[in-house]
Amino acid sequence: MRRVAIIGIGITKFGEHWDKGIRELALEAGIKAIADAGLEGEKIDAGYVGNMAAGSFALQEHLGAMLADHLGLNPIPVVKVEAACASGAVAFRQAYMAVASGIHDIVVAGGVEKMTDLDTETVTKILSAAGDQEWEAFQGATFPSLYALMMRSYMLKYGATEEDFAYVAVKNHRHAKNVEYAQFRNEITLEQVMESKYVAEPIKVLDSSPISDGAAAVILTSLDQAYSYTSEPIEVLASSQATDTIALHDREDLSYVKATEIAATKAYKQANITPTHIDLAEVHDAFTIGEVMAIEALGFFERGEGYKAAREGWSTYGGKIVINPSGGLKGAGHPVGATGIKQIYEIVLQLRGKAGSRQVKNATYGLANNVGGSGATSVVTILGKVY
Amino acid sequence: MRRVAIIGIGITKFGEHWDKGIRELALEAGIKAIADAGLEGEKIDAGYVGNMAAGSFALQEHLGAMLADHLGLNPIPVVKVEAACASGAVAFRQAYMAVASGIHDIVVAGGVEKMTDLDTETVTKILSAAGDQEWEAFQGATFPSLYALMMRSYMLKYGATEEDFAYVAVKNHRHAKNVEYAQFRNEITLEQVMESKYVAEPIKVLDSSPISDGAAAVILTSLDQAYSYTSEPIEVLASSQATDTIALHDREDLSYVKATEIAATKAYKQANITPTHIDLAEVHDAFTIGEVMAIEALGFFERGEGYKAAREGWSTYGGKIVINPSGGLKGAGHPVGATGIKQIYEIVLQLRGKAGSRQVKNATYGLANNVGGSGATSVVTILGKVY
Repeated sequence: MRRVAIIGIGITKFGEHWDKGIRELALEAGIKAIADAGLEGEKIDAGYVGNMAAGSFALQEHLGAMLADHLGLNPIPVVKVEAACASGAVAFRQAYMAVASGIHDIVVAGGVEKMTDLDTETVTKILSAAGDQEWEAFQGATFPSLYALMMRSYMLKYGATEEDFAYVAVKNHRHAKNVEYAQFRNEITLEQVMESKYVAEPIKVLDSSPISDGAAAVILTSLDQAYSYTSEPIEVLASSQATDTIALHDREDLSYVKATEIAATKAYKQANITPTHIDLAEVHDAFTIGEVMAIEALGFFERGEGYKAAREGWSTYGGKIVINPSGGLKGAGHPVGATGIKQIYEIVLQLRGKAGSRQVKNATYGLANNVGGSGATSVVTILGKVY
Repeated sequence: MRRVAIIGIGITKFGEHWDKGIRELALEAGIKAIADAGLEGEKIDAGYVGNMAAGSFALQEHLGAMLADHLGLNPIPVVKVEAACASGAVAFRQAYMAVASGIHDIVVAGGVEKMTDLDTETVTKILSAAGDQEWEAFQGATFPSLYALMMRSYMLKYGATEEDFAYVAVKNHRHAKNVEYAQFRNEITLEQVMESKYVAEPIKVLDSSPISDGAAAVILTSLDQAYSYTSEPIEVLASSQATDTIALHDREDLSYVKATEIAATKAYKQANITPTHIDLAEVHDAFTIGEVMAIEALGFFERGEGYKAAREGWSTYGGKIVINPSGGLKGAGHPVGATGIKQIYEIVLQLRGKAGSRQVKNATYGLANNVGGSGATSVVTILGKVY
């Protein structure tokens, strides 16, 4: 296997893009990534695009061919990959494998979702397709309610309070304030979170990531070739994916994301580092409980301790590790298929030392954890500066 | 790159499965493939599943995780890949790359679609998502009408008649009669095809593949390891994918599928053979014109000559090459995501010499061509006996 590096990154603003469709969003991110790499498009050998539900959101499938066409990349193969909210990271992993193996030299990995054209009820129904339709969604178990079960289970097990989770939302909005592509650049207070309406008790509106439009893209090549394009390639040290039962009711423990632990263990082994080496991590806070479970399964905090991190300042600047410098899904927004690539975008920016006012000092290793469904797919990617 | 072989194959009956969902169909094919390989499920390292539109057909996305779960494969990564009607072959190609590169040792590639739960009008609308939604489908251009434009263009250019195309349907039904998994095991006459109603002139009902449910799966491993499971592995000699414009109106020539020619040229080069070596081919006759364009772009017949093949008996047993021994999409059925894997299933069976009454004599090389949309994605796979 060859060493793989990222040489270009691009992203759109996350939020409501009334004037743009999937095509325009994906093109903007793709073109920015190609420009950032200082690359000519003809040099790209293949592409992977993560997208969950353009078929349901916009009656548009076949995004691989569509984006190859409109990015001017024909006739190279571009493949759409879907793994619910983890579609972006899974697409990235395929691109990584294609380069690591030597099958392709320069590969673009993108993610896109356009969600705001439909009403919230329809969007919620479409997103429920990430779980088990027959055994969960059809019974009325939407994603807020599935995560509410996990949050309730966690609270009962460890004595965490709703306030503990509210601190996660407050922190992530505070981070997002400095993020130019974030959907929400406003701070929120603990009181605002606590007073926001329940979506599915104990989860409140302000525990929840929003419905978003957006796209992100990155360009990968072998580390050897990377220096032709940039003096500062960021290396992909590991990429690992694991699965768990699709239905929440089949899990052994609702307060823990086993697939994340499995993927993380493999990823640390591949990168030959431990959780203590990681300076910053982008994790999947679709709901605040998601961040808490992630930082435990990733080994940053002990089981049953993760809920204290935001409250105590351990997971922000000046703490133990910076979790979600981008503002996470809560602050930056969550255009489903784009999220996994956005996580990688932010880490690359940080490791390049180009994150401006939100720069994590001496950032050397960064980790991204993108989760699909209620934890049925989990992908862990570790990036590092090259020495 | 390692040499890759297929060691197990499985398929469901194609047709209307009122009593089965995606899950049951995929499991049946997957379990048959695992059993055929004489494998224990735990030995599988990864999976890829091709599916076009389970999100729209059944409100079920995240098929990778769902199938990993229900096939008992957790926690290995299983990835859903989508490229419209070429989803199956693209999934196969990812599995091939994963094994060839040495990243994974034993990989399952499957395809599934469950289409018959909805009315024809809704299914047609969902399938239109394979084209350009904004510039084709929204204007009323369904897939029969797009292929009608190609057929009309071909007829004008080469003087082919509707009857020439009808012979393709007659041949493929005749082939399907001997195929145990085929949806239509009845012969049809030239008169029946010619007298069937127009769907989109000049395409008639009996020029068109049906709406189908079904699944297929194959198991891949390195050629070295293959002999631990079978004395007769079938080698994957080439796998190539190319793209063209997603919208038909952007093509230079409507009577030709350029992406197929590009993919085929690469595939022949990789396999180090020429079209004359191929004994049988499974091609994408979603409509009869599809088969005619495919056998030209694949180099079996000269441009402008392909329409004569079925009429003259060149593309059946005793002719130049057997095209669609499975009955093709027309005879065997077209559960979209499963079709690309079914093509490979049939070729493996033929190359093993186990195709019974439909056995192509001395079959040594077989080719599969799976097409997405009106030709925006085309995948060519070449399989061969191992000497």
